[in-house]
Amino acid sequence: MAEHTIKAFDEEIDTLRGLIAEMGGRAEAAIENAMVALLRQDRDLAAQVVADDKRIDAIEAEVEKLVIQVIALRAPMANDLRDVIAALKIVSVVERIGDYAKNIAKRVPLIATNSRTMEPVSLLPSMGQVAGEMVHDALNAFAARDPDLALAVVERDTVVDDFYNSVFRTLVTFMVENPKTISECAHLLFVAKNIERIGDHATNVAEMVYYAATGQTLPDRERRQDLQPEE
Amino acid sequence: MAEHTIKAFDEEIDTLRGLIAEMGGRAEAAIENAMVALLRQDRDLAAQVVADDKRIDAIEAEVEKLVIQVIALRAPMANDLRDVIAALKIVSVVERIGDYAKNIAKRVPLIATNSRTMEPVSLLPSMGQVAGEMVHDALNAFAARDPDLALAVVERDTVVDDFYNSVFRTLVTFMVENPKTISECAHLLFVAKNIERIGDHATNVAEMVYYAATGQTLPDRERRQDLQPEE
Repeated sequence: MAEHTIKAFDEEIDTLRGLIAEMGGRAEAAIENAMVALLRQDRDLAAQVVADDKRIDAIEAEVEKLVIQVIALRAPMANDLRDVIAALKIVSVVERIGDYAKNIAKRVPLIATNSRTMEPVSLLPSMGQVAGEMVHDALNAFAARDPDLALAVVERDTVVDDFYNSVFRTLVTFMVENPKTISECAHLLFVAKNIERIGDHATNVAEMVYYAATGQTLPDRERRQDLQPEE
Repeated sequence: MAEHTIKAFDEEIDTLRGLIAEMGGRAEAAIENAMVALLRQDRDLAAQVVADDKRIDAIEAEVEKLVIQVIALRAPMANDLRDVIAALKIVSVVERIGDYAKNIAKRVPLIATNSRTMEPVSLLPSMGQVAGEMVHDALNAFAARDPDLALAVVERDTVVDDFYNSVFRTLVTFMVENPKTISECAHLLFVAKNIERIGDHATNVAEMVYYAATGQTLPDRERRQDLQPEE
């Protein structure tokens, strides 16, 4: 590439990375707000999370457009091309993380937090916090191209998985003992599953970052994943 | 592009489309087999569905590799480039459909089909059939670039959504009346949700096909989607 083309390419890549960082920040905020809305039974905040998701979707569309433009105008070489395609994949994962947060928010009006359901509801925020931190660190690992931070995210996925399994059992027991809460607890099961999936997707991002930085995949997780349903 | 380059490009596009068709066929088979395994309590078949998913993942990786190669070697113009990037997006959706089928299969050992759970289990296969047909038609619409068939898939998504809502209510009622089945019914709730998500993803593919063929989006579904949690 000519020098001015390289400069334009680098600027476009910076724009891409900036958009991905913004998207990650918004996804994190969505997770936090969805958990607060659930805990406080705050329907306005839940509605806000749902509304804000449109911006996350819009950034994904913007990144796609920019990627096509970069490829068409700059014809990047193999390594740069792989980086640009990786950006496409990462935004698609972050968009899904935003969707999970939105889906949690959508369930808020269906789950009345009162003395009857406070006990099962209270299981979830710490799980949400771990998953939110994983998203934060995965995106930081991407921004800093930091394989060690990425690896730490991957290793934390088992915490969320163990959390989920424990919440699942606790909720089922609670349902058996409190049949009147079954409908609300069913929604809480899905909330727990959504948080667990957020952890999985943060892990996917971290795996992509690790692979991009080291050229090595992490085979152990693949085996572990096959032991239980993911969705 | 020079004539021989155009020929090579067309061949590569045909290879891409062939891989996507194969992937779609495998995803459909996975849905069917997962439902049969659930109904017959066939753990071997369920394990087969889980094992077969690796081939779906491998095809996605193959498509990604081919797309990068096509872009790097042929430098396709804007329209062709968009088609190639659309192929990437479609395989990522089909891969997720395969994952949902795999996740249903993984739950089979957790759900004992017997006289106690036969009633709630029997709700699911017809729902699975509708979702499987949507996947089939969405991929056919892609192969034939047929916007009418794509539109018919999008319209059918409400059938799966209504099915899901009805199954959710029925399962909750069943759990209240049969507390001993709560754990198994909780897994069935996730199976129903997975089927509903397969319908959503078939609809996503159909929307991409419709957009590619007509240049128009279908705004109505977006509004509808926001009325209820998707995951």
